[in-house]
Amino acid sequence: MDVAPALPGPARSALHDVLGPDGLVLDPDVVGAHSTDWTGRFRGRAPALLRPADTAEVAAVVAICRDHGLPLVPQGGNTGLVGGSVPLRGELVLSLRRLDTVGAVDTLAAQVTVGAGATLAAVQQAAGRHDLRLAVDLAARDSATVGGMVATNAGGLHVVRHGAMRRHVVGHEAVLGNAGIVRHLAGLTKDNTGYDLGQLLCGSEGTLAVLTAVRLALVPVDTHHVVALCGFEQVGDAVEAVGRWRRQLPDLNAAELMSDDGVKLVAARSGRSLPLAGDPRWYVLVEAAGRHDPTDELAELVGSAPGVGDVAVALDGPRRAELWALREEHTTAINTLGPPHKLDVTLPADRLAEFCGEVRSVVAALDPRAQVWLFGHLGDGNVHVNVTGVDPHDERVDDAVLNLVARHDGSISAEHGIGTAKRRWLHLSRSTAELSAFRAIRTALDPAGILNPNVLC
Amino acid sequence: MDVAPALPGPARSALHDVLGPDGLVLDPDVVGAHSTDWTGRFRGRAPALLRPADTAEVAAVVAICRDHGLPLVPQGGNTGLVGGSVPLRGELVLSLRRLDTVGAVDTLAAQVTVGAGATLAAVQQAAGRHDLRLAVDLAARDSATVGGMVATNAGGLHVVRHGAMRRHVVGHEAVLGNAGIVRHLAGLTKDNTGYDLGQLLCGSEGTLAVLTAVRLALVPVDTHHVVALCGFEQVGDAVEAVGRWRRQLPDLNAAELMSDDGVKLVAARSGRSLPLAGDPRWYVLVEAAGRHDPTDELAELVGSAPGVGDVAVALDGPRRAELWALREEHTTAINTLGPPHKLDVTLPADRLAEFCGEVRSVVAALDPRAQVWLFGHLGDGNVHVNVTGVDPHDERVDDAVLNLVARHDGSISAEHGIGTAKRRWLHLSRSTAELSAFRAIRTALDPAGILNPNVLC
Repeated sequence: MDVAPALPGPARSALHDVLGPDGLVLDPDVVGAHSTDWTGRFRGRAPALLRPADTAEVAAVVAICRDHGLPLVPQGGNTGLVGGSVPLRGELVLSLRRLDTVGAVDTLAAQVTVGAGATLAAVQQAAGRHDLRLAVDLAARDSATVGGMVATNAGGLHVVRHGAMRRHVVGHEAVLGNAGIVRHLAGLTKDNTGYDLGQLLCGSEGTLAVLTAVRLALVPVDTHHVVALCGFEQVGDAVEAVGRWRRQLPDLNAAELMSDDGVKLVAARSGRSLPLAGDPRWYVLVEAAGRHDPTDELAELVGSAPGVGDVAVALDGPRRAELWALREEHTTAINTLGPPHKLDVTLPADRLAEFCGEVRSVVAALDPRAQVWLFGHLGDGNVHVNVTGVDPHDERVDDAVLNLVARHDGSISAEHGIGTAKRRWLHLSRSTAELSAFRAIRTALDPAGILNPNVLC
Repeated sequence: MDVAPALPGPARSALHDVLGPDGLVLDPDVVGAHSTDWTGRFRGRAPALLRPADTAEVAAVVAICRDHGLPLVPQGGNTGLVGGSVPLRGELVLSLRRLDTVGAVDTLAAQVTVGAGATLAAVQQAAGRHDLRLAVDLAARDSATVGGMVATNAGGLHVVRHGAMRRHVVGHEAVLGNAGIVRHLAGLTKDNTGYDLGQLLCGSEGTLAVLTAVRLALVPVDTHHVVALCGFEQVGDAVEAVGRWRRQLPDLNAAELMSDDGVKLVAARSGRSLPLAGDPRWYVLVEAAGRHDPTDELAELVGSAPGVGDVAVALDGPRRAELWALREEHTTAINTLGPPHKLDVTLPADRLAEFCGEVRSVVAALDPRAQVWLFGHLGDGNVHVNVTGVDPHDERVDDAVLNLVARHDGSISAEHGIGTAKRRWLHLSRSTAELSAFRAIRTALDPAGILNPNVLC
């Protein structure tokens, strides 16, 4: 879309009355900056950027949009990967960034109430002053907002220990599509008084309501961290080992998988030597953390796992960072080979090894030049499948990988969500009955169909 | 209701075709036994008891009921406390008890798929063979079914450590009110492909769907348990101490509050002496459990809490059971004084102490003969308020207590749910906008309004 759609006069006037000049932004440069995602993959055009200052203004905006039939895209830090917060079809952009209040940390309950537009970094900073933290943390913490993290049920590296964002949401305030405000922010961990709307909004990608505030549970800051890097010849042995560690090590903080070609690529790009002897085919980075030193326990469990080869243990910060860098630099290193197909999938634990074997053949059958990079969060069955060396727009690659995932009862989107980018494959993970239930719920809460209409289902 | 309503001929014939004589039960004695709860407080009449043998039969039954406009009450073990599974207005009873398959325990993922009608005991037995268990456990384990526990988001003694049922549901199969079957049982812990219907069904009390199967996450069996009983003069000090222990002791397995009159009543009824010196006004039973011996850590934390008086620590099984009995015998002991008003409420942590002070005055103002018994799950802010010595049918007592809860931003039902018994107070915990959202969701998934129509909202 090259020409920004116009905002009809009556709607414009109504929005101006509510938002004033600071809140109704028509400047094409500013609107344009909010209409494209950070990767540049998703480029849209919006008639205006709406920047309400509080929940009441959000509700007024939603009412106006409903009355004028104007679709809108709620937007936080715009750090998503699936085009879920970009106005690809001329929607209005509703930025929540001005709702950035971080409330006083309730140290008794270990909770905090924050505006949807507060960044993750702001939350971590406030919590950190009381030796607390939000258990979900992301590299994009300076931009990613809490509202966006809840709307996409953000995951990250530590889901194996703490669960995804959903587990930490203990209260919510949101404006539904009918412009009604639902507020449930007391942070009660036991509250069986009807449906948990907050849980329903987790992962709903802005299609049911505009989140305006969230109450979050916090966890204590860890005082000890130990990292081990383990080599395996068979990915099945790695899966078995992590299954065992999850049971035996309650403070298992991460369990990350990498194949040898990815580790070699990262090492070569950064001039490092290979971290383990024996040139293993698979690497598992495992981290334990907590308020007690888990070194002995981790070392014993890691050393006794069937199929494990060479192991490196990092006790101090710099050495831990070095091992973590092997994993964290995967995306950057792969991107140097050209824009990859990026698939983010989950497999059931007992299908993961088989999938890792088959996915290479499935892609090779399409194009023998393709390179398949496998890495991800083994503790959750979450594999990032990147494919380079092929046309980045050739959807047959995505088709082939995601169909294979579906044949193994996996999920076509582990943590990135569906957005606009993955809609055409949603039917692989969700049945007709489920999709029909989704649409019924959506219509129930957003009868005018104005909330992110091109996202999800 | 004294006369059982008749089942219209065409519906009866259609149900007979689907269920056969084993599944369509008209014998008044059998139907009657399923129409009353175990306490005898809720007595209904049903035209028939439906006992489908599998999910397909459940779907067929729901379709028939939808087509004939026949309301039904899903029923598991019928162990609830709020009349949510009793046909109070002549509904059909849909028992899930025949769907009692317990699948093979997946030790790799630490999960198991079970039919909605499987009892908690059956799940624990299967899991126990692999040193695993469902983290939510209840005294009613031989009768309570998994489907009922999910539909009511059951809690219990260990929510402080493991969360309520909701946290352990990683897959679901259910028949929606439109007779569609939704099935999502792969047990993927990361799966951002739309709304989490399983989470929506947790605590929905049979109003959105009939659960037919659930995939549950399991946790390792604990190898160590330590219990301490601590005396406090001020309930505020007890609240502060538990808040601190929750942060410092990740394996805090229970933190139970009792007031001195309750402990004295239990001790007197059982011929025990008082467990602590100094006659404290409040008792907190705290348990730590896990795969490591937490004794030293617990003893240190307990001993150093501000305001703590005498402490008894139980290291061995019999002594632990003795301390637990003080808490567990509360209900039985109080029931000997006549049927109590039983209120099950949650308060925000920072309002709990004030509430405990005020609730006695509020009740005394209504009737000076009333006795107020306070005990419950302090780690979750969940207080069981029992009131004896007054007319058990005098709703002014419930009104007064629940209004006080609402003034402190609490929940009028912590773990028991709303059912039919608490409906008239639901507005105290939920706003008009929330209730309207509940009803919209309900209509979306059960357009004919046949699922537990007299329950919840």
